[in-house]
Amino acid sequence: MAKPVSPRGLARERVLSAALALFVEHGVHGTSVGMIAERLGVSKAAVYYQFSSKEDIVQEVLRPVVENTSRVIKIAEALPTWEAQRAVVISGLVEMAVGHRQLTAVFHADPAIAQVGSPELRAATDRLRELLEGPDPDPTSRIAITLFFAGVGSVAADPQFADIDDDDLHRALLDLSNRILQPATNTV
Amino acid sequence: MAKPVSPRGLARERVLSAALALFVEHGVHGTSVGMIAERLGVSKAAVYYQFSSKEDIVQEVLRPVVENTSRVIKIAEALPTWEAQRAVVISGLVEMAVGHRQLTAVFHADPAIAQVGSPELRAATDRLRELLEGPDPDPTSRIAITLFFAGVGSVAADPQFADIDDDDLHRALLDLSNRILQPATNTV
Repeated sequence: MAKPVSPRGLARERVLSAALALFVEHGVHGTSVGMIAERLGVSKAAVYYQFSSKEDIVQEVLRPVVENTSRVIKIAEALPTWEAQRAVVISGLVEMAVGHRQLTAVFHADPAIAQVGSPELRAATDRLRELLEGPDPDPTSRIAITLFFAGVGSVAADPQFADIDDDDLHRALLDLSNRILQPATNTV
Repeated sequence: MAKPVSPRGLARERVLSAALALFVEHGVHGTSVGMIAERLGVSKAAVYYQFSSKEDIVQEVLRPVVENTSRVIKIAEALPTWEAQRAVVISGLVEMAVGHRQLTAVFHADPAIAQVGSPELRAATDRLRELLEGPDPDPTSRIAITLFFAGVGSVAADPQFADIDDDDLHRALLDLSNRILQPATNTV
């Protein structure tokens, strides 16, 4: 067994950053605490000094998205009309996907993570979808919203766009999102 | 070991249909020949009488998509302008996703299948993307095309739309695809 480094030498942020990189490469289920320790050149004990379990690491990696999602929901819910709420949700989701591309890639590769990783996040995602759908959505709207979620996630997660900067990617995705989610001309 | 049924009693189509259902439930990697046999209530030997390997079954399950894709490519390539080619590819892809929803679900859950399952299919998919992109695509077009592929696949694969009939789903997706792939108003 490798000699543990001083726990003080191992910042929580370094563990989270190594974990996220491994999640992107191997998926959450394909990543172990041992792999995270190896990537950092430390013992498993040093990682366990900071986090009680892999589950704990997953929760912390997801935290920025959970917090961001809750913020978007709060901002949207404070607005008076559904149209205004919807605009905030669309823009907020695009911002999140672009601003957290690595996390988006993890979700995109394994959508079950939202459920496994955090019931809180699952609830927040459901609420975002409700805000987008509005009261009594027709099938055409539900189709557009499903396409929007998957499409934006897929682009933000795609390494071929890694060299496009956040502002440009945000602008392109927001333009596409508005086209997708504009009221339909014909309905199913 | 179960007693093999008469191989004549086991149609190839029944094996392919059971295999596809299991691929949807467990993924291609999570499905074994034993599971296919069990689903059909026959021995593995009965399955192996029809197919030499799981790989062989995967190829046969994918065959309709490979053939369909080749046909779409041939039709498109015969057209004189890129605009006309592009319209055929968009419509052909939507038709395929809707007409083979179960297969679309398998691809959507594991995009690596196209590569593992059939180099022919991989080449055909790349050609479709080239036809969509046209010569010298800008980043905005590439973003829209990536979103189109992922979005259409995600909707066609989603069980929440299972009760929408093919014609209606085709119409809704074609409308969305045309919105997504119309020339951009601003570029990255």
